Amino acid sequence: MSIITLLTDFGLSDSYVAEMKAALLGGCPEAVLVDVSHTVDAGDVRAALYLLRRTWKRFPVGTVHLAVVDPGVGSERHALAAETRGHFFVAPDNGLLTPILDDADVVALPSPEAASPTFHGRDLFGPAAARLARGALLHTIGTPVTDAVRIALPEPRVEGGAVEGEVVHIDHYGTLVTNIPAGSVPATGVVAVAGRYRAPVLRTFSDVAPGELVAFVGSDGMLEVAARDRSAAQLTGAALGAGVRVEPRSH
Amino acid sequence: MSIITLLTDFGLSDSYVAEMKAALLGGCPEAVLVDVSHTVDAGDVRAALYLLRRTWKRFPVGTVHLAVVDPGVGSERHALAAETRGHFFVAPDNGLLTPILDDADVVALPSPEAASPTFHGRDLFGPAAARLARGALLHTIGTPVTDAVRIALPEPRVEGGAVEGEVVHIDHYGTLVTNIPAGSVPATGVVAVAGRYRAPVLRTFSDVAPGELVAFVGSDGMLEVAARDRSAAQLTGAALGAGVRVEPRSH
Amino acid sequence: MSIITLLTDFGLSDSYVAEMKAALLGGCPEAVLVDVSHTVDAGDVRAALYLLRRTWKRFPVGTVHLAVVDPGVGSERHALAAETRGHFFVAPDNGLLTPILDDADVVALPSPEAASPTFHGRDLFGPAAARLARGALLHTIGTPVTDAVRIALPEPRVEGGAVEGEVVHIDHYGTLVTNIPAGSVPATGVVAVAGRYRAPVLRTFSDVAPGELVAFVGSDGMLEVAARDRSAAQLTGAALGAGVRVEPRSH
Repeated sequence: MSIITLLTDFGLSDSYVAEMKAALLGGCPEAVLVDVSHTVDAGDVRAALYLLRRTWKRFPVGTVHLAVVDPGVGSERHALAAETRGHFFVAPDNGLLTPILDDADVVALPSPEAASPTFHGRDLFGPAAARLARGALLHTIGTPVTDAVRIALPEPRVEGGAVEGEVVHIDHYGTLVTNIPAGSVPATGVVAVAGRYRAPVLRTFSDVAPGELVAFVGSDGMLEVAARDRSAAQLTGAALGAGVRVEPRSH
Repeated sequence: MSIITLLTDFGLSDSYVAEMKAALLGGCPEAVLVDVSHTVDAGDVRAALYLLRRTWKRFPVGTVHLAVVDPGVGSERHALAAETRGHFFVAPDNGLLTPILDDADVVALPSPEAASPTFHGRDLFGPAAARLARGALLHTIGTPVTDAVRIALPEPRVEGGAVEGEVVHIDHYGTLVTNIPAGSVPATGVVAVAGRYRAPVLRTFSDVAPGELVAFVGSDGMLEVAARDRSAAQLTGAALGAGVRVEPRSH
Repeated sequence: MSIITLLTDFGLSDSYVAEMKAALLGGCPEAVLVDVSHTVDAGDVRAALYLLRRTWKRFPVGTVHLAVVDPGVGSERHALAAETRGHFFVAPDNGLLTPILDDADVVALPSPEAASPTFHGRDLFGPAAARLARGALLHTIGTPVTDAVRIALPEPRVEGGAVEGEVVHIDHYGTLVTNIPAGSVPATGVVAVAGRYRAPVLRTFSDVAPGELVAFVGSDGMLEVAARDRSAAQLTGAALGAGVRVEPRSH
């Protein structure tokens, strides 16, 4: 079995995802295709990066992760394939692969002559992903690259006994996901969102009453702030980038 | 072949569905995954129940139905697996399985130590579904339960020659699906919605003129009220729970 | 491997797509199912026709294309299966198959007695697609038809040195897809949308500055008008049917 995951901003109302899948199945008929999301906002590389970062490591070794959010399609930007820890990645060179670049072998893919300049997902990235899924070695499908584009990601800061981070993703339920890792979250503590809303650090939603805010280590190992049975984003008005401060309860 | 169907309120913009699929394919690489819906309103157990009830029996015997609409995730609520008529079910113990409980063997699943308290779909339900898809016997993956939570579902009432029911689902086309079974629908009759709008009982949309209301036995064997080429919900203003009365034409 | 593609207006919030997939997998367990789109506007046969036309030829020979946008379900309209260039098609006889009819063998499918009059996707089209995916010969599943319904599609007109066409699809990014084929697009030229907005004919988005209009031969071989990093539909206000005129630069 070869799994190929798909992450794009193609939307669900056009045939673009299906046309890319045609290229994948044409090149690797036995591939198992798993959609991550196709509703990333158009051109939002950073949002795709978040989803890719938390998803890839959940899949079995050997999986190929195809991520196409590509506002620079057809320009001089490179097309990349990469390999790390037995996983493969195919994406444009626009920072989308930032989270895996440190430990990865990376190659630039040649652009097929017949590739549409506006649909590399179907004509360039898709066929490359299919080749990797069929077992092609990374270095046989492109030429080594060492200067892949990276996006600077916000890092949490330690301030006295507290840790200051920010909201890096807001999920479908309105839960605020931060860039503060579990290791920086005290067992008992309190979290402030946007300098104003306060939430106790607990285990899960049901540790507070309906409608109340709660903070916990989320399913990707990062501090999250949620509201039981409602949207924390709506409750707090917090948007991407909003400050989140966590401190031990005794402070 | 092992089919696993997936029904959740995870939405399509996060990686949650894909992370659950990673658990499924990690545990049962040969599984065929079929999405039922992931756009159930957050926490709407009753809506998921409706979809599960009409869907599961369409699949081949041996199918595993994984349904995760789980506002109580991480609390003391049980995690269930069940078996009836050769089909398997995995879901939280919040009433979602009500339609199949009468004839089912039911077990409570242990929670893996490493399970995220906020993502049992990936860390508990998914792995259990994968084990069933690989052929595990129900009683080897959990301990028997006889008091699974049930949701009280509205029953239609007979009043003289008429039957009174209500709208239990409104579909994507705006068609009103009721809880009145085919057996209670006269061959010629008339249906009143919300005490006001009237529709003849016929066979299908095209038996009335464009824009007009029509009632028929729907594709799940229940009385439905639709409008040809438009939304009956919009036309009538009927919401979930709206009263629907059917009586033979002669009345 | 047998691929079946699915294109419908069933939406993603009901169980209708899954119920049709149950019929497909019940009839052809080894089928690989690929969703094209299920968010076609209710009853919009013309929109489905556009998606089908550009998608089917991307798939391997032997693929079955199942397209169900069927406002006349249950009426006397025929149910069709067709074969052309090694591809198979299953759809209602309402013009959806117009693009492939010229070269196709076409048959009318019998309606199973037990078919729900409101859900032929599951009970008639799905089972027929499954039979074709398992290798059934076209003429064994229906009776020949020579008068399948066709939709008149707008054709571009040559006017002096210019070509006049119209917008036939607006994609998820707001890009305007026209009915003017690559062969009618000069290497250097200028395109006018709705008689007012002008765009140079170039190669791709990144050939203009952010926010500017650009015209190019799109990924389906037709003239498209896009705006870099924004929506051309929003920028120009152009809707389906809006006039698009392309002329060589020297004019």
